[in-house]
Amino acid sequence: MMNKMAFYSDFIYYNNEIHNNSYLLVTDNIIDGISNNIESYPDYKIKKFNNSAIFPGLINTHNHLGMGIMRGYADDLPLMTWLTDYIWPAERKILSGEFVYNSTLLSIAESIRSGVTCINDMYFFAFDTKRAFEKAGIRGVVGFGVLENFNKAFKAADKFEETELVSLSICPHALYTVPFDIMKQCCSYAQKRNILLHTHLAETLDEERQILERYNKRPVELMYETGAFDINSVFAHCVHVNDDDIKIMADKKVNVSHCIESNLKLASGFSPVKKMLDAGINISIGTDGVCSNNDLSMIGEMSTVSKFHKAFNMDATALSAETVLQMASSYGAKALNLQNIGILNKGMKADFFVLSFNAVHLTPVYNPVSHLVYAAKDNDITDVYVNGSPVMQDRKLINFDEEEIKNYAKEKAKILLKG
Amino acid sequence: MMNKMAFYSDFIYYNNEIHNNSYLLVTDNIIDGISNNIESYPDYKIKKFNNSAIFPGLINTHNHLGMGIMRGYADDLPLMTWLTDYIWPAERKILSGEFVYNSTLLSIAESIRSGVTCINDMYFFAFDTKRAFEKAGIRGVVGFGVLENFNKAFKAADKFEETELVSLSICPHALYTVPFDIMKQCCSYAQKRNILLHTHLAETLDEERQILERYNKRPVELMYETGAFDINSVFAHCVHVNDDDIKIMADKKVNVSHCIESNLKLASGFSPVKKMLDAGINISIGTDGVCSNNDLSMIGEMSTVSKFHKAFNMDATALSAETVLQMASSYGAKALNLQNIGILNKGMKADFFVLSFNAVHLTPVYNPVSHLVYAAKDNDITDVYVNGSPVMQDRKLINFDEEEIKNYAKEKAKILLKG
Repeated sequence: MMNKMAFYSDFIYYNNEIHNNSYLLVTDNIIDGISNNIESYPDYKIKKFNNSAIFPGLINTHNHLGMGIMRGYADDLPLMTWLTDYIWPAERKILSGEFVYNSTLLSIAESIRSGVTCINDMYFFAFDTKRAFEKAGIRGVVGFGVLENFNKAFKAADKFEETELVSLSICPHALYTVPFDIMKQCCSYAQKRNILLHTHLAETLDEERQILERYNKRPVELMYETGAFDINSVFAHCVHVNDDDIKIMADKKVNVSHCIESNLKLASGFSPVKKMLDAGINISIGTDGVCSNNDLSMIGEMSTVSKFHKAFNMDATALSAETVLQMASSYGAKALNLQNIGILNKGMKADFFVLSFNAVHLTPVYNPVSHLVYAAKDNDITDVYVNGSPVMQDRKLINFDEEEIKNYAKEKAKILLKG
Repeated sequence: MMNKMAFYSDFIYYNNEIHNNSYLLVTDNIIDGISNNIESYPDYKIKKFNNSAIFPGLINTHNHLGMGIMRGYADDLPLMTWLTDYIWPAERKILSGEFVYNSTLLSIAESIRSGVTCINDMYFFAFDTKRAFEKAGIRGVVGFGVLENFNKAFKAADKFEETELVSLSICPHALYTVPFDIMKQCCSYAQKRNILLHTHLAETLDEERQILERYNKRPVELMYETGAFDINSVFAHCVHVNDDDIKIMADKKVNVSHCIESNLKLASGFSPVKKMLDAGINISIGTDGVCSNNDLSMIGEMSTVSKFHKAFNMDATALSAETVLQMASSYGAKALNLQNIGILNKGMKADFFVLSFNAVHLTPVYNPVSHLVYAAKDNDITDVYVNGSPVMQDRKLINFDEEEIKNYAKEKAKILLKG
């Protein structure tokens, strides 16, 4: 027997337009349509979200979820001091499959609370990351990290079985840490298995300098030669790209994950996002990991993206609230090559979140999209559905015990604090 | 009889340093000290805030609280279209003392929820604004707006009596809207009454162009000649300031209110804050009003200030979490010439807020200041005290009914939506 649900809300962002006082119709995990006339659908069970809006689930296209427990461990440091004196020693001391499983759940809890229904991850211990996604019941692309150990990664990835919710990617770290030939092999592997390639690109000036010295090419030119632009792939950051780079990327319809708060906090620089969007490059949004942001709020990220690029372009109409919402949803789905999510429409998977307007800072409502992008906070999100099933209801997570994860995190922190 | 309270917290930011597992000692409205040894203070009533930190109340040094009900009414528009086609007609249609009173309370509710205990405001209907501050029980500087009607403003301001919590300021709007002579008269009035002068300065390139055309001087040079730098004054924005401007401002020890999210959203530009701080200018933080931000969260503002200026200076150590916290507290107090707030220390007024670390995105804790600036959300703030009295406890406002204000706001929004 099929489970037919009609979700009422004051505003539903359906097919990229606001519909007032409507019902989102869902059968099992698939959206059937939208209606103002619920009497025509007597076999649907009604659930009402009053003084609220329903939006497509947000898609975070670049993350390192497994670092969750290390948030705030080291800040306000130069990049290399941060990495070599703090993050890498901490990882050496503490990393395990169990740590990554719990850290990932900690990060997923925060993500769900921010309206996120799908995350593109890159870290170690992919099978434990997968376990965490399955426990939480949200959608994810789990990446196998590659530095030089490509054979080991490919062998492990061979055994990774994709599911309805969890897909696979191969994640060579970056051109400055992975030899050119291995980057090429990763592309071949991704193409052969028809999975996503996910890597960092053009993040810092130091990376640009290194690649120029080693290869006499800019990072984007070199990435082009690996073949990575010819397959399904997502490139995180793309901060230091010039007009020639943008032309190459536009011709190849490259997918970029823009991680503005990480780029700002690590002092990487300003990505020319409007120029890239105008050129036809697909720009989605990622938070990056908690060590470089330090939060996983896609709500906060949308606000920063929209506000920053207005000033960067000296144009208050640039990157409107609607554009940024689509970057955080449908553009993200396109980047991850997941064709059935990212927009609420007939036949799509039922991934959505509910934004309550009860808080004083969202009263009154003139434009629900403006409120979402410019004024909402994570805590205004009350309910999140993935694939037709609730993963949060009335701000309570459904599939796992946050207190347990928090207690685990506190215990592990004691080990790090001992130094 | 005196009211002696000892507030326990895991972390207390006392005298600009974190103290662990301590008690903040308060008698009536004054801080007596801090102690780890509560047995020595048997006559103090203990209140415990577990898994939390106590920070000095945040000070928002530029706002237009009375616009609260107009948030999200018009966005993503060029500045002049926004003002002339939306904001000004809306104000003409809807402004009244009653509207400003309720709008101000709506804005204050949001501010308290963001840890704010003191706000420097500039709008119309100053007596109604004062009523709202008194109702809410928080500290404020209420400004009399001046365009060309200076005599009317001065006469009204003559009758304004300052209280323990509410001070007075005179607010000539800006050099491009207020004639030079009137700006000078405002300075004389402020000096005569020993009150603050609060105005906008060097916000946009268009302002710079207009002032150069009209006076053949840059805005900062012209402001210097009004005498405004010789009295207690706060200048909002200061985005378009060059090295000569910075030298003048540093020599005169000028107080700037940096409103980064407003500057970004209205595409005004990037303020050289680190350069100004390094020159010795006192930079505090303001949110600006809800129509140009669109939120009043000082928590969010601190995050944006810190992250943005790291990238702007290509230096991940610039504007550390500690520096930004001080900009949002003690530097704000200095700007407003309020010498007994802004820092938790013996003899200071007891204005503080409590940040809970219970949320998943603040677990575990390594550094409470990092968590406050980089990861906390408004909803993590549970309790706020002003002048020794609670204005929010367990996330519930004490002195006024938010539901009433929200209902008023919804009714007024219907009028605006009718067009």
